[in-house]
Amino acid sequence: MWNQVTVIGVGLIGGSIGLALRRRELARQVVGVGRTPQRLAIAHEMGAVSSFTTDLAEGVAEADLVVVCTPVATIADTVRRVGRCCPAGALITDAGSTKGEICRAVSAAWDDRARFVGSHPMAGSEKSGPEFSEANLFEGSVTIVTPGEGASEQAVQSVEQFWRSLGSQTVRMSPDEHDRAVAAISHVPHLVASALAAATAAEDLPLAGGGWRDTTRVASGDVQLWRQILTENRPHILQSLVSFEKVLCEFRQALQENDAEAITRLLDAGKQNRDALGS
Amino acid sequence: MWNQVTVIGVGLIGGSIGLALRRRELARQVVGVGRTPQRLAIAHEMGAVSSFTTDLAEGVAEADLVVVCTPVATIADTVRRVGRCCPAGALITDAGSTKGEICRAVSAAWDDRARFVGSHPMAGSEKSGPEFSEANLFEGSVTIVTPGEGASEQAVQSVEQFWRSLGSQTVRMSPDEHDRAVAAISHVPHLVASALAAATAAEDLPLAGGGWRDTTRVASGDVQLWRQILTENRPHILQSLVSFEKVLCEFRQALQENDAEAITRLLDAGKQNRDALGS
Repeated sequence: MWNQVTVIGVGLIGGSIGLALRRRELARQVVGVGRTPQRLAIAHEMGAVSSFTTDLAEGVAEADLVVVCTPVATIADTVRRVGRCCPAGALITDAGSTKGEICRAVSAAWDDRARFVGSHPMAGSEKSGPEFSEANLFEGSVTIVTPGEGASEQAVQSVEQFWRSLGSQTVRMSPDEHDRAVAAISHVPHLVASALAAATAAEDLPLAGGGWRDTTRVASGDVQLWRQILTENRPHILQSLVSFEKVLCEFRQALQENDAEAITRLLDAGKQNRDALGS
Repeated sequence: MWNQVTVIGVGLIGGSIGLALRRRELARQVVGVGRTPQRLAIAHEMGAVSSFTTDLAEGVAEADLVVVCTPVATIADTVRRVGRCCPAGALITDAGSTKGEICRAVSAAWDDRARFVGSHPMAGSEKSGPEFSEANLFEGSVTIVTPGEGASEQAVQSVEQFWRSLGSQTVRMSPDEHDRAVAAISHVPHLVASALAAATAAEDLPLAGGGWRDTTRVASGDVQLWRQILTENRPHILQSLVSFEKVLCEFRQALQENDAEAITRLLDAGKQNRDALGS
């Protein structure tokens, strides 16, 4: 399908993209680009990339598709650098967890040599690094594709086709719609899980069972990565946090008033939403 | 080790106790007692009990050990009924998620024919019913044993030995210490997960990835069971909720003020506690 795909940033997501591309024989070459030779070498050993370089210009010089998988704070700059170095007509996407600021920053300095369409695969885990890559990471997942203003329909469809070829479903949203929805379904849950883990006294930790472990699992995620995500998507997260705090407050009042009916109603509402998704 | 163990209530916990006892050959007979013949028959088919009855008096008449695994709201009454029907000197424990009220209610009407020591195995899942029983459910888990005032040291040690024989570690606490600790490590996480699931808009659910799924998993738990637990342990839960809300509020302020340092500090605190436990 592709002659050369270049993956910039070979962490869990970038490594998994490379593994999936190679396992499914979707690209003749998968080139890894990063700053740390050791990480690139791990990705190479795992079979996630067929070659690698720390020189971005060299890595994208012959790419048909470039996937930017760096931490969110550096994505916009990286996409712009890629746009200046890659072949005219190459397609560029990313895998960042926020989209509004990235898409605006990219559009602001775009010269049309290449085509950029933002993406966000809703896959991953609390782990990070190429050693946790998995070829089937995207199977059964959803990837949100976020065309900015003026994106060509053909480029958008190519990016959607790319994620589907890795086993993901795709959903199309504007960058701002994406940021609102993802604040609710990913960023606020992360913040809440992190607050819960932080609020637990060290002396109680030895008693933790599966409930605490599941509920707080994502709090193990990379701190700098999540600090960037929370910072970039602040407005939507703060708004979504209001909805959560409202329900939490109803729960507290129901307990304070020992209102069995209200407690049941709230537990039921949570169970209905959770059961809708399966385990 | 035991001639006859009677398990009252053959759901996930009761069934798993039976399976573990029989797999490890720790009891000659495991008798299941419950109200629903169909559930008892499932437990029997799975090998969790060697025989069963819906008649409590008959089921405990020759028991050396009775484990009451009914929903928390009925435990105290059930223990008192067992105390009137079981052989003099038999040992009784339970598996309820709250301990203060149960232990007080049992002590208030105790005639010393049998010996009661409360327990809470910190194991289980969001599933319920004998069909989800697992022989290894308690391996690597922690069970809190909560002697009431005047409990004999020998009875306490026998109950601790019982849980250890199923593969669990044991920790000894007073019923009230238990209720405080478990509010923090289990009940508030459940309430928070449930609030998070309830606060999620149905339209955003198709975007849920592993993060939302993990963080809200326990919200699938049995609503009536959890309504009883939250109601019984209200004072400790409300107190523990204050600690969580305080950290949540710090998170919100840090975001409002775009204070990268404070966000990092909070994410770090959560990660440290979560990493201390492993996956």
